[in-house]
Amino acid sequence: MAEKPRKPQKLRARLPRGLADRGPAEIAATRAMVEKIREVFERYGFEPVETPAMEYTDALGKFLPDQDRPNEGVFSFQDDDEQWISLRYDLTAPLARYVAENFDSLPKPYRSYREGYVYRNEKPGPGRFRQFMQFDADTVGSASMAADAEMCMMAADTMEALGIPRGSYVVKVNNRKVLDGVREALGITDDAQWLTIMRAIDKLDRLGISGVQQLLGDGRKDESGDFTKGAGLKAADIALVSSAIESGNKSEIDVRLRESEIGQLGREELKEIGRLVAGSGYGPDRIVIDPSVVRGLEYYTGPVYEVELLLETKDEKGRPVRFGSVGGGGRYDGLVSRFRGEPVPATGFSIGVSRLQAALTLLGKLDAKPEFGPVVVTVFDRERIADYQKMVAALRNANIRAELYLGNPKNMGNQLKYADRRNSPCVIIQGSDEKARGEVQIKDLIEGAKAAAAIASNQEWRESRPAQFSCREDELVTKVREVLTRHEVKWGSY
Amino acid sequence: MAEKPRKPQKLRARLPRGLADRGPAEIAATRAMVEKIREVFERYGFEPVETPAMEYTDALGKFLPDQDRPNEGVFSFQDDDEQWISLRYDLTAPLARYVAENFDSLPKPYRSYREGYVYRNEKPGPGRFRQFMQFDADTVGSASMAADAEMCMMAADTMEALGIPRGSYVVKVNNRKVLDGVREALGITDDAQWLTIMRAIDKLDRLGISGVQQLLGDGRKDESGDFTKGAGLKAADIALVSSAIESGNKSEIDVRLRESEIGQLGREELKEIGRLVAGSGYGPDRIVIDPSVVRGLEYYTGPVYEVELLLETKDEKGRPVRFGSVGGGGRYDGLVSRFRGEPVPATGFSIGVSRLQAALTLLGKLDAKPEFGPVVVTVFDRERIADYQKMVAALRNANIRAELYLGNPKNMGNQLKYADRRNSPCVIIQGSDEKARGEVQIKDLIEGAKAAAAIASNQEWRESRPAQFSCREDELVTKVREVLTRHEVKWGSY
Repeated sequence: MAEKPRKPQKLRARLPRGLADRGPAEIAATRAMVEKIREVFERYGFEPVETPAMEYTDALGKFLPDQDRPNEGVFSFQDDDEQWISLRYDLTAPLARYVAENFDSLPKPYRSYREGYVYRNEKPGPGRFRQFMQFDADTVGSASMAADAEMCMMAADTMEALGIPRGSYVVKVNNRKVLDGVREALGITDDAQWLTIMRAIDKLDRLGISGVQQLLGDGRKDESGDFTKGAGLKAADIALVSSAIESGNKSEIDVRLRESEIGQLGREELKEIGRLVAGSGYGPDRIVIDPSVVRGLEYYTGPVYEVELLLETKDEKGRPVRFGSVGGGGRYDGLVSRFRGEPVPATGFSIGVSRLQAALTLLGKLDAKPEFGPVVVTVFDRERIADYQKMVAALRNANIRAELYLGNPKNMGNQLKYADRRNSPCVIIQGSDEKARGEVQIKDLIEGAKAAAAIASNQEWRESRPAQFSCREDELVTKVREVLTRHEVKWGSY
Repeated sequence: MAEKPRKPQKLRARLPRGLADRGPAEIAATRAMVEKIREVFERYGFEPVETPAMEYTDALGKFLPDQDRPNEGVFSFQDDDEQWISLRYDLTAPLARYVAENFDSLPKPYRSYREGYVYRNEKPGPGRFRQFMQFDADTVGSASMAADAEMCMMAADTMEALGIPRGSYVVKVNNRKVLDGVREALGITDDAQWLTIMRAIDKLDRLGISGVQQLLGDGRKDESGDFTKGAGLKAADIALVSSAIESGNKSEIDVRLRESEIGQLGREELKEIGRLVAGSGYGPDRIVIDPSVVRGLEYYTGPVYEVELLLETKDEKGRPVRFGSVGGGGRYDGLVSRFRGEPVPATGFSIGVSRLQAALTLLGKLDAKPEFGPVVVTVFDRERIADYQKMVAALRNANIRAELYLGNPKNMGNQLKYADRRNSPCVIIQGSDEKARGEVQIKDLIEGAKAAAAIASNQEWRESRPAQFSCREDELVTKVREVLTRHEVKWGSY
């Protein structure tokens, strides 16, 4: 560090913007998602590998999509030998380093998957985080379009494994070579102008062809009155780009496009992918060729794919919210070669787990039902904590989630409130009378809540079982087990 | 970033020191460990919570054990508003921030667990990493010794859940107040001198009492001849410290120690913990009071605990290797209060997952048997890739791990070698003859390996089933399933 942080006047508990804590429901949902994704990726023959969260900055390279602060897309610091280290901004660049470093010992093609957090030093905003989770699969060492076709099919299978029905998502495929062909046909030599054109193409989904055409030409004024300067293309060139990116238009492709060799190669690769996925039964209800797909990352060299959620929901003002892309990938034949000095073809697919989870949560597709908490053994007599702790140990030894109330035991009401907060299925109470009789009280909170609801709705009260009962001390485990079983509370192995 | 990294002459694929990649066996072992720890922690009534990998530097504080580079224990960078952000160096400081930030909405006592990587900007060395995994549980809002006792019992249960038999580990408990009492009795006012004394005490395990006494006095010369300067205590003070830290000596405790109020309180707290764990059936074969336990982190204020592996192994030169501490924790009553301005008692326990995994691996306690890979469908005729891909899709649809060979298909030998490398149970081959007959060949690699072994050991060859056979195309899934079932290869749900 160049300088030590100044100590603030008053220590405030807060997180830097763009970072978030996660509670039990969110963690459980992520775990379930990750397990399902893992299952699909393993079914496709990928094996796990994991790299650390940080790498030498030069090994990661600078392949982030262009952004507001181009030099600050990554979090970086200097090591004590002055070398720069960065937090990974995706899972692909570290994999390329890993494969290059272990090239000779890996089976080739090398098929691997990995899951983990990535970090972007971007301006945080709504739904835009500086730490988020991705789940990637990559095939390194295969130039075959079958490798890309497989990524698209796997993307479709993953969506369905996650509970997104067919028709509610689509995998769109394009090829960077097709876009290179457009550039060649247009004769664009200025990189900045080409970037403006790519950005315009990327907006086809959101703005429609007329909006894109404005952005390709002089520019476009949006509903709020903001003006975005266009790429300055002439009408004939705008028509050429339009014919290239409108998927319905393939037969009428502009003659100038047909003359570009690279563009033609891209179209042939797309046709091969289309043939392979169709042959395996993946129709246009799952995978479509879409010449408007761009993908931001700069390292792509061939096919690119994007998974889009077609589901809509409404925001708090009732306006429709489209989720758009929740994953994607493509071929990056140059990324491993940077280290190797020989061509190493590679292709990969990445799911934005955090982004997809946010979408599924908004859509109500994630099970948000809270799980039951532990059995709470209350403290009636402060001097007898060791006895209560022993009951807890007995329950735990029987594989039942249990805990001793560890707050101030002076008020039994607070202990019961705590058990409610923890969503406990039942609490154990042993006062001096029960102790004298060698008994314990079991208060069934689930039954109690039902009874309370029955009173509230003015129905028969206590129609089923009593919400509180006594049993002998040595029956504690058996009786608690009965309560848990009766209410179908998960216990034993979790 | 103050400065952009310079581009090196040649890009070398390498990781910064102290960081490591992880392959399938290691990842599977970590997953299994984490699941077992989670199960125990949930049985104890803890619920998950997760905080991001980075925090404001001031929120984390500076509580790392003293080290070679005291100002550089953490990885830090400045945000665009000039505020310092650091990667977490443990999971406790972020939890304190989280609890302080969400104090009013959390149930109290708040019992939570979390697992994740932490980062230390230390000088890396053998077994000393800059990224490693911890698994923590904490109870915030309870001053009760029952909370600490529970941590010790949970530590013991966790070790046994991980397959470490009773007697092969021990949970040692001490109390910082006992050490504070020693300081008071000695009348030490110089922090540096006290640190030297603590460091000496911490070495009791390794050097024995005479080694510690040398370090408390003038100093100690080790076997290599290196001299460590001592704390400079006089003989009577050395005797006092010795009587305090030798656990067998409690009845003969130095009179000066008995006069320290804080020391006395510490001993009473230890006695209470001893009573509680004994009451729940945790004897000295699992949990012992050990007044020599120090624990490095500076935020501890009361009971401290340490889990030690008692198993030994030999290094490559045949010398015994002791693993020592694989986890620990303690009470940190001041950590949440830093944000709150009111006392918030808290205690927690942390397992060094990476460290424990390294130890278990060396001890051969982790199942390192590689899992079977996917079924490999080979490419005999390059023109018919779509057909082969369709077979793969059929196998995957039946929940069988399968893949198309995606390398250069020109050599069938290479394809079979690849299947061997992937540890595939069987490969599928369809040449033009088989195609004409509507058949496929299934080559059972497991049976084949057995047969090869049988030949090698000069026994009966092919005593059981043929390692290669044909079947009708439409029987492919059924027949592959039979091969997998016969060899007990896991398939279906993973």
